[in-house]
Amino acid sequence: METRIRDSFARQGLMDTLGARIDEIAEGRVTLSAPITAAASQQHGYAHAGLTFALGDSAAGYSALTTMPDGAEVLTAEMKINLLAPADGTRLIATGEVVKPGRRLVVTRATVETEYADGTRRAVAILQGTMVPITG
Amino acid sequence: METRIRDSFARQGLMDTLGARIDEIAEGRVTLSAPITAAASQQHGYAHAGLTFALGDSAAGYSALTTMPDGAEVLTAEMKINLLAPADGTRLIATGEVVKPGRRLVVTRATVETEYADGTRRAVAILQGTMVPITG
Amino acid sequence: METRIRDSFARQGLMDTLGARIDEIAEGRVTLSAPITAAASQQHGYAHAGLTFALGDSAAGYSALTTMPDGAEVLTAEMKINLLAPADGTRLIATGEVVKPGRRLVVTRATVETEYADGTRRAVAILQGTMVPITG
Amino acid sequence: METRIRDSFARQGLMDTLGARIDEIAEGRVTLSAPITAAASQQHGYAHAGLTFALGDSAAGYSALTTMPDGAEVLTAEMKINLLAPADGTRLIATGEVVKPGRRLVVTRATVETEYADGTRRAVAILQGTMVPITG
Repeated sequence: METRIRDSFARQGLMDTLGARIDEIAEGRVTLSAPITAAASQQHGYAHAGLTFALGDSAAGYSALTTMPDGAEVLTAEMKINLLAPADGTRLIATGEVVKPGRRLVVTRATVETEYADGTRRAVAILQGTMVPITG
Repeated sequence: METRIRDSFARQGLMDTLGARIDEIAEGRVTLSAPITAAASQQHGYAHAGLTFALGDSAAGYSALTTMPDGAEVLTAEMKINLLAPADGTRLIATGEVVKPGRRLVVTRATVETEYADGTRRAVAILQGTMVPITG
Repeated sequence: METRIRDSFARQGLMDTLGARIDEIAEGRVTLSAPITAAASQQHGYAHAGLTFALGDSAAGYSALTTMPDGAEVLTAEMKINLLAPADGTRLIATGEVVKPGRRLVVTRATVETEYADGTRRAVAILQGTMVPITG
Repeated sequence: METRIRDSFARQGLMDTLGARIDEIAEGRVTLSAPITAAASQQHGYAHAGLTFALGDSAAGYSALTTMPDGAEVLTAEMKINLLAPADGTRLIATGEVVKPGRRLVVTRATVETEYADGTRRAVAILQGTMVPITG
């Protein structure tokens, strides 16, 4: 399972562009992270909501993938993000988890935290959405 | 108004990283676009949902900004995206519009289309969400 | 198609409890309405968000059903509502429409308006969500 | 605080119509429940998504109200629901909680479970949304 997820992740150009990496893979739960850099900022220098979303959505998607058989893939059908605070730290950490597995739809959630230079963290976003398994 | 939006846009590192540009600015309506490149792809080579979201969310945010007084800024409070089809063209075009302006909350929608090499387009996502004016 | 939708609607106890009726059925588009009464109010006497949601969600669901073969049913997989204004009129009118039909997922939108005693209307909510076809 | 919430709840006609009651009130966390009856059913006899939404949204709203000063009220700005399973039990139980308190926006979540005749429970929906404090 881990190999499958790392392979898929490696083929995601956007994750590479954003400097994202996989921090942890467990059954129904995946953690990704990425640095907050000028290249992924909004107009105030904080992480752009697009980065926060991309990371949270990907963590959620991969958490869904951990519940699927070999050869399956997932697509995001829909995702909703609530932003809680400006992403003003040095790194974003997104943890996705499966709320309800399924053959047709997988309901997921994710939390995105920002990490400061001193190692403390603060939640910056929560996401809730649906993944669709693709076989083929 | 247009200058203000172009200035804000120019300071968004992520928009620059993604090669995004402003195509059109009107009262309550803004169109952005970006190329679909390997650097913004998911594992199948289509545009990553993170790109689709970032573009749609930014178009929605700037459409909200057109309804605000000088000096104001907007933040995304929450945004929901439904993905309609794989973003398999060569360019993404996002149009954001204000559904309900307001001093405290601005409700917005956006549509994201993919454009093929032959100039035809297909809708790939719709977004619906809330912007919060920031005065500072 | 119309018979099928009217039959399904008639079996929805909640629609009956809320006094809801079908106003219009077209391919990919259904309009429902219900009176704003004390029995469906929130603490200020306006229509409860639960009524606004129930009506908008049902209009969206039935619009999806118009695109499906005989014998199919739909379930809401997920739905998001943005409330635009207090529902302070005498009647709520919800129009649902299909944005993207599909065999596995149908993406829908709905708009809910309040109607005042003088016949004027105001938008009170927009919804965006996913219906899942059930064949039984 | 508890009195304030019970007073507000008592004025909600829809909650009365649905037979809903308050089960528990704590700082940042409120639980409501309602019977699944024919009067609140969809076409298969399960609880209508409108009931599930109304209960989850109200639990989320009251959880937000517990974090506010006397005299404040809350309105739902937006709410998203993912339905996980048919609500086929005898009672719905919704627990709302505050994810992020705030003076302008309160981000909340809710979980709705169905309870069967034998007392076992199953999650049927999760909600995520924004409440707006109203001072008046």
